[in-house]
Amino acid sequence: MSSDKISKQIAFIHEIDKIKYIQRKTRLFNSERRENDAEHSWHLAVMALTLAEHANEPVDILKVIKMLLIHDVVEIDSGDIFLYDTEVNHDNTVLERQAAERIFGMLPAEQAEEFIAIWEEFETAETPEAKFARSMDRLEPILQNASNQGGTWMEYNVEYATVLQKVSGIRHGSQPIWDFTQTVLDDSVAKGYLKKEEKNQN
Amino acid sequence: MSSDKISKQIAFIHEIDKIKYIQRKTRLFNSERRENDAEHSWHLAVMALTLAEHANEPVDILKVIKMLLIHDVVEIDSGDIFLYDTEVNHDNTVLERQAAERIFGMLPAEQAEEFIAIWEEFETAETPEAKFARSMDRLEPILQNASNQGGTWMEYNVEYATVLQKVSGIRHGSQPIWDFTQTVLDDSVAKGYLKKEEKNQN
Repeated sequence: MSSDKISKQIAFIHEIDKIKYIQRKTRLFNSERRENDAEHSWHLAVMALTLAEHANEPVDILKVIKMLLIHDVVEIDSGDIFLYDTEVNHDNTVLERQAAERIFGMLPAEQAEEFIAIWEEFETAETPEAKFARSMDRLEPILQNASNQGGTWMEYNVEYATVLQKVSGIRHGSQPIWDFTQTVLDDSVAKGYLKKEEKNQN
Repeated sequence: MSSDKISKQIAFIHEIDKIKYIQRKTRLFNSERRENDAEHSWHLAVMALTLAEHANEPVDILKVIKMLLIHDVVEIDSGDIFLYDTEVNHDNTVLERQAAERIFGMLPAEQAEEFIAIWEEFETAETPEAKFARSMDRLEPILQNASNQGGTWMEYNVEYATVLQKVSGIRHGSQPIWDFTQTVLDDSVAKGYLKKEEKNQN
């Protein structure tokens, strides 16, 4: 029955409204206000749409956008974990897996399976689509921090080497975008927004 | 040069951050807080993804999602116009057209044309994709108002007949979703969240 399916789907649509309250650490462009997960997911989806031509491999852009639209829904239960958190592991946790099953599980069975599979593919980061989607997720806060005189890099005292380690995966999604990102990071270092330890010269 | 294209695309990505500040009249589900255009656009895109099977005609869901992700970008210049505003016309205005040309015009020429065409197709409301996308845009505030004891219907004294006139276009996108919507409206009338003039019985 289509009305039964619609009722389940609407209950899911209602439930995911909650990501609008999940605050990220990163702030909007040129702003003091922190971004929430809905705003973030919207921006990543438009970024993917805009930048798709630069992906290293041909990507199914619909799948990329699906990933980006739903990748943070699990945070309704598990909360946002800051990329540079030094205590909590950012990887796919048991809590996130339970959240995926609860929240996507509100959908009709076949659709629930499809959404969980898309979320898992994003988390596993192995397909061209997941790699490109994840490069968007890494790029946005770099652009935001660069526009905010260093933003969370300065606020949480994160150094260039740490940033590089966390975000260099962008190159797996798109080499040209990674080349561009490096110019943004270098510019941030030059402006004093991102601290870089000098290597010993001896 | 791909770096020239990326620079233009990043400037666009930066510019559209501004829709996160554009407040709609409608409030989040079960909430006092007003929704902004980025949250709204994210929600509509996920709604379309979730409800696509109910479209009256087969739709290119990627195109539907593109429409929904970018349909409100013009409001950066033109502002949000309330669906039930009695003085300002909600239709595609000269101001919105100028906004589309300025904002999408930041992109490389070919992509700018593509985005403007998608935005126009949504506004023109003639293709199956545009009809289905617009049905999502009408449905979300109904669900929100129903969850908020009438929300903007009560706040702005909007009656059932007016709502029906503004939202019945949902049926052009999806008859099953329109059938479901009518049960939501009837329930809102029954609960006193939406005023319905009694017809004269003589």
